[in-house]
Amino acid sequence: MRKDGRLEPNELRTVTIETDYLKHPEGSVLITAGETKVICTATVEEKVPPFLRNQGRGWVTAEYSMLPRATAQRNIREAAKGKLTGRTMEIQRLIGRALRTVVDTEKLGERTIWVDCDVIQADGGTRTASITGAFTALAMALARMVEQNKLNTFPVVEELAAVSAGIDGEGQTLLDLCYEEDAAADVDMNIVMTASGRLVEVQGSGEEATFTRAQMNELLDFGEQGIQQLIEAQRHALTEIHQDIPDWMKGVSPDASSFNCDE
Amino acid sequence: MRKDGRLEPNELRTVTIETDYLKHPEGSVLITAGETKVICTATVEEKVPPFLRNQGRGWVTAEYSMLPRATAQRNIREAAKGKLTGRTMEIQRLIGRALRTVVDTEKLGERTIWVDCDVIQADGGTRTASITGAFTALAMALARMVEQNKLNTFPVVEELAAVSAGIDGEGQTLLDLCYEEDAAADVDMNIVMTASGRLVEVQGSGEEATFTRAQMNELLDFGEQGIQQLIEAQRHALTEIHQDIPDWMKGVSPDASSFNCDE
Amino acid sequence: MRKDGRLEPNELRTVTIETDYLKHPEGSVLITAGETKVICTATVEEKVPPFLRNQGRGWVTAEYSMLPRATAQRNIREAAKGKLTGRTMEIQRLIGRALRTVVDTEKLGERTIWVDCDVIQADGGTRTASITGAFTALAMALARMVEQNKLNTFPVVEELAAVSAGIDGEGQTLLDLCYEEDAAADVDMNIVMTASGRLVEVQGSGEEATFTRAQMNELLDFGEQGIQQLIEAQRHALTEIHQDIPDWMKGVSPDASSFNCDE
Amino acid sequence: MRKDGRLEPNELRTVTIETDYLKHPEGSVLITAGETKVICTATVEEKVPPFLRNQGRGWVTAEYSMLPRATAQRNIREAAKGKLTGRTMEIQRLIGRALRTVVDTEKLGERTIWVDCDVIQADGGTRTASITGAFTALAMALARMVEQNKLNTFPVVEELAAVSAGIDGEGQTLLDLCYEEDAAADVDMNIVMTASGRLVEVQGSGEEATFTRAQMNELLDFGEQGIQQLIEAQRHALTEIHQDIPDWMKGVSPDASSFNCDE
Amino acid sequence: MRKDGRLEPNELRTVTIETDYLKHPEGSVLITAGETKVICTATVEEKVPPFLRNQGRGWVTAEYSMLPRATAQRNIREAAKGKLTGRTMEIQRLIGRALRTVVDTEKLGERTIWVDCDVIQADGGTRTASITGAFTALAMALARMVEQNKLNTFPVVEELAAVSAGIDGEGQTLLDLCYEEDAAADVDMNIVMTASGRLVEVQGSGEEATFTRAQMNELLDFGEQGIQQLIEAQRHALTEIHQDIPDWMKGVSPDASSFNCDE
Amino acid sequence: MRKDGRLEPNELRTVTIETDYLKHPEGSVLITAGETKVICTATVEEKVPPFLRNQGRGWVTAEYSMLPRATAQRNIREAAKGKLTGRTMEIQRLIGRALRTVVDTEKLGERTIWVDCDVIQADGGTRTASITGAFTALAMALARMVEQNKLNTFPVVEELAAVSAGIDGEGQTLLDLCYEEDAAADVDMNIVMTASGRLVEVQGSGEEATFTRAQMNELLDFGEQGIQQLIEAQRHALTEIHQDIPDWMKGVSPDASSFNCDE
Repeated sequence: MRKDGRLEPNELRTVTIETDYLKHPEGSVLITAGETKVICTATVEEKVPPFLRNQGRGWVTAEYSMLPRATAQRNIREAAKGKLTGRTMEIQRLIGRALRTVVDTEKLGERTIWVDCDVIQADGGTRTASITGAFTALAMALARMVEQNKLNTFPVVEELAAVSAGIDGEGQTLLDLCYEEDAAADVDMNIVMTASGRLVEVQGSGEEATFTRAQMNELLDFGEQGIQQLIEAQRHALTEIHQDIPDWMKGVSPDASSFNCDE
Repeated sequence: MRKDGRLEPNELRTVTIETDYLKHPEGSVLITAGETKVICTATVEEKVPPFLRNQGRGWVTAEYSMLPRATAQRNIREAAKGKLTGRTMEIQRLIGRALRTVVDTEKLGERTIWVDCDVIQADGGTRTASITGAFTALAMALARMVEQNKLNTFPVVEELAAVSAGIDGEGQTLLDLCYEEDAAADVDMNIVMTASGRLVEVQGSGEEATFTRAQMNELLDFGEQGIQQLIEAQRHALTEIHQDIPDWMKGVSPDASSFNCDE
Repeated sequence: MRKDGRLEPNELRTVTIETDYLKHPEGSVLITAGETKVICTATVEEKVPPFLRNQGRGWVTAEYSMLPRATAQRNIREAAKGKLTGRTMEIQRLIGRALRTVVDTEKLGERTIWVDCDVIQADGGTRTASITGAFTALAMALARMVEQNKLNTFPVVEELAAVSAGIDGEGQTLLDLCYEEDAAADVDMNIVMTASGRLVEVQGSGEEATFTRAQMNELLDFGEQGIQQLIEAQRHALTEIHQDIPDWMKGVSPDASSFNCDE
Repeated sequence: MRKDGRLEPNELRTVTIETDYLKHPEGSVLITAGETKVICTATVEEKVPPFLRNQGRGWVTAEYSMLPRATAQRNIREAAKGKLTGRTMEIQRLIGRALRTVVDTEKLGERTIWVDCDVIQADGGTRTASITGAFTALAMALARMVEQNKLNTFPVVEELAAVSAGIDGEGQTLLDLCYEEDAAADVDMNIVMTASGRLVEVQGSGEEATFTRAQMNELLDFGEQGIQQLIEAQRHALTEIHQDIPDWMKGVSPDASSFNCDE
Repeated sequence: MRKDGRLEPNELRTVTIETDYLKHPEGSVLITAGETKVICTATVEEKVPPFLRNQGRGWVTAEYSMLPRATAQRNIREAAKGKLTGRTMEIQRLIGRALRTVVDTEKLGERTIWVDCDVIQADGGTRTASITGAFTALAMALARMVEQNKLNTFPVVEELAAVSAGIDGEGQTLLDLCYEEDAAADVDMNIVMTASGRLVEVQGSGEEATFTRAQMNELLDFGEQGIQQLIEAQRHALTEIHQDIPDWMKGVSPDASSFNCDE
Repeated sequence: MRKDGRLEPNELRTVTIETDYLKHPEGSVLITAGETKVICTATVEEKVPPFLRNQGRGWVTAEYSMLPRATAQRNIREAAKGKLTGRTMEIQRLIGRALRTVVDTEKLGERTIWVDCDVIQADGGTRTASITGAFTALAMALARMVEQNKLNTFPVVEELAAVSAGIDGEGQTLLDLCYEEDAAADVDMNIVMTASGRLVEVQGSGEEATFTRAQMNELLDFGEQGIQQLIEAQRHALTEIHQDIPDWMKGVSPDASSFNCDE
């Protein structure tokens, strides 16, 4: 049995995605994965960063932060320190890069989508939960832009989610590590994958251990299973807001293939 | 009728205080006042800042922040800017100063209580909601320290809450302004008061208007009413966790008017 | 008898206002209140901050600083630390907000007035002395703009000054606290008021004490008396430069109660 | 034919490692991989960071920077900007983490090894060249500590090197991308591996593309080949300084298996 | 005739040195040189910077700043910018280095003297006026330490002052340039010299011009004359406070050679 | 005999200047003076800083840095500290000011030349080696602009180099101090001079010692000799690239003593 009571090594934690969690943002969710809770919002800005001006393309960027008591020990605020930690920079670069892979920035037009991931409570896997939640908030914001005729077509190419996997001290591969498992793991991997099983990002590392190609393959197998379930959860969450959105998006149901079809 | 539908000028918005909102902190609440939502946590640290070392006294300090999309327009993160705004500094100094007024720091011993107020959604009155919520989180953390025999006595001297009041463009005094009212007000006042009606902090200002002593008195009258109701809400919230805390806290207030009773 | 030798609780310290203290600024004074000495200057800039562009209105903003040895212990320079303290931010926001209350920014046109308050020597009441001095420097700069036909009308709506009041450990209300009194006070209040007795800003707080509504009223009564005397001192100072300024300023105030007359 | 004239997709660029490149550091190399040139140094400090004090273990940490004109366009210095970019943070965290995987920090004792990687000229693959060069500089510094009896045993567990691989716009897998290839690649992967073929770190990502499990495997196959050659180059470089170092290290020859044996 | 009305090229501006200008510092002066006005203070701290600990020696360090409206155009505060300019750093390093040349830091003991130079009004020569004023404030603070038996001997080795000289567009050498002269000069030199005519610091530069050895000699000749007069002014200023200080310092008279004798 | 083995007090260390050291910059050299090694590059940017816009003139500016292990003890990176030290600011201001003295910025047109000096290895005299190397890199970049018809005339007015001189503890004047000599010197002087022997910049200082006019003259005599030899080295280095540059540069100097001749 696993440290948080799960029975199987390839078992995902319970995931919930509450849509329209906040009043002001164009898209927002509260995603929970076990005890990990992240608020993800998507904000539409009608301009692009200087390096993209006058190219007819948009941009998607992400920021990530934790509340000071998201963790067992209080963390000093980065705003109080006056700078971001390397960990934060690394995570927000990862989130932005992953999301850009599935957005057609030409269809988006000269706009920036700011995705904010704020971890309210942390119990392992905050960066992967952020990506999974961020995709949902982003899809909501973009769907509303179609609904409001600000976009002609839904610019998402394919759905995307993320999960962690790791290898514990006994060599056991585990899916979706909770904090206690993560702290004790020899190898830690974060996997971002699309609905069709294509890889977007793979980051595997062992701080004081190494791993074989065979182990790497098992980590990816576990991740692939988890991501399929997470994409189901995203579809389920987005379905719930169908009453208020136009027909084209209702295709995004668990059994319909076409999340992003706008026919 | 008021801009958010309230019927009376001296009517408070609906207040809810959800205790133990987060898993890790020693005390935590989610306070909502109308559409304003703030997570307040209290963290106990077993040391004091350098200027207080070896004096046998403790310290209470506060930090305040907003999620970027707590507001209608996205705000740039202070961590990204690399510094706190003057507004944030002003607010967190106010919260800390107010809380210290009602804590007996000698009874607290050489410890620091860090109070974090993170605004999840803003609709006016975030600093006063932060104070009201912060007091509750602080009381929870201190009650647990008594329960765990880390403290001999509960070091809170008296209960405390805060509310805003203002004067609108027609000269009407209003209690507990929502954002739309606040943005249009000529005069804005924040009032922090104890259960016995003593003033802790009064900050009244008019950016482009002035006010009379008579108006000031009406603002304080409105504030006093609101604060009595907020203290009732705090007592109600703390009562809910009574099963898990010792008897002594059930009659905690100095003068038997009973800190936490609403029976 | 008071700690600095004054005989009455409602007695102001000796105030002097030396006009045209510096050569370069459009308006400048050295104000002394007892041992507290502040250089206040007003600078006219022919543009406004981005948020005000093309609105036909001006802006008044303030900055505040202390020399390192203005105080008994040397303070580290904020420039060396690389950031402003919360105290400085709070004070400069207060000064700017107060001054804006009495300037008609539409009459000012698209200009910014920068008010700089630099404390040369500190003995309590530096923020209130800054406001009283800053108003005088600002009025000088604006009067010269009228004289030079850069402004058609003098854009000051009403005169304004500021003073502190407090309650000592024995419950005695005191006006215009010197540093020694301030350090020992239970309650500290800063009051900004116009010549006609209207309130601009009230900030009262007790770090480790609370106060009643009755005490609050006495603090305001004391403040009101002090402010009348400070406005007389401002008028006296401005009168001295009348030889060099046009007639219109000799009866500048809105209701003939005469901004600058002390004849 | 490849953009820089190489004939084979799995061909490494010419690698040279000049040892003792600088006079002062305990270990230093100039590593060149094609047109990419990096100075790597290792500095021994006789203390550890606060979080490791009194645990009997050491630490290895890395810093990375580029000269402003290492690149075709001049980059603003991070020292002038006042902060590190996310890219720099990400790279130096990667280098440090990778090196720690192959150092037995208990054998190192309470010391920190600072590894500095300064890119003099950039033409793709600066982070992987940094890791390959950094390992050599680190090994030199540690070997000298053994020689000087500051260490009883050589604390390196196994040799390590790094290389990039990618997929170009036609789906062709390429080893060791030069800048022009890297800028045009759909997928980019950095691989850190030990002499025995165990993975230390895998980071694969596609900014605007995705990749399959099969492609991932080919990228790893290419990387594995490249790393074997890079480890040969490291061994060759270290062999050249054998005259000045003790016998135990001479085992680190191209044909001997055991770089780190000290039996 | 010179731009500020002086008749001779080697004529110093009027210098005044007002001692004990501020209440709190151990030593303080207001020095004026023509229209340039600088407040210089000396603060005694009973510890040394880390690099000097336990060496039985003291330290003298300086900080320099300008009020925003010391100049014709308002300067942004360095505290607001969050960092010191290169000009400020250069000047405060110069002041500190010059003062350390004439203080016997072993006699000073493990103490730091902080010298603060704050320019109230600038009209050229602020760095040299700062040095001349700073020496006087420093001497006052050290004399008082002798008087209070905190020091056995007066640790000043020799008196010191500073002045500028320059070459104008017509090749004329000028002493003690006012701002208007300085802005138009081809060559600018700052000279720090002791009472006995020994050089402490020479900094000569031409931004868009060069100069000959012969011109350099004339600049030094002018500087030497000016510095003798400035040292007379220092002696005169210090003599005025002799009533309050012990006999040994009275030797510091205009006609006595020995400022620093304590035999 | 001198500490690094030189036989004469007025003997320069061996100087080498390797041109086109880096691939990307418009001009670049590796200059070595004894054990001191500096990479100097010149970058052409087709715009000027805001204060020079639309004036038809260019700008030359310099930045200076050291690798962390350029020195015997590792230095913390300024990028990691988040700010430049005063020493760095002082040096880069000196380099820029010196270079601007010999460039006709009107002939340069509205362009900025960024000169970067990065010290790879330090053994005294890094700032003077930087100036000598920087001039060569600058001349290379400007010559290429003439060659490419981006400039009509070569905008360098005269050649320039820099060297240090000092006085040791026995009063001996020394030219071109190595680190060990510099650390023990009583007086340190940096001299920047043109080919025709005109002074550009003189900075002489004694941290804990003073010096006479006679000593100052000897320091300048030594400097003058050294600079003539350094200018020969620059000419020699530039000659090597003559095959690739147009004829006009072969007789570039103002008085036919021939900028680049080494006949």
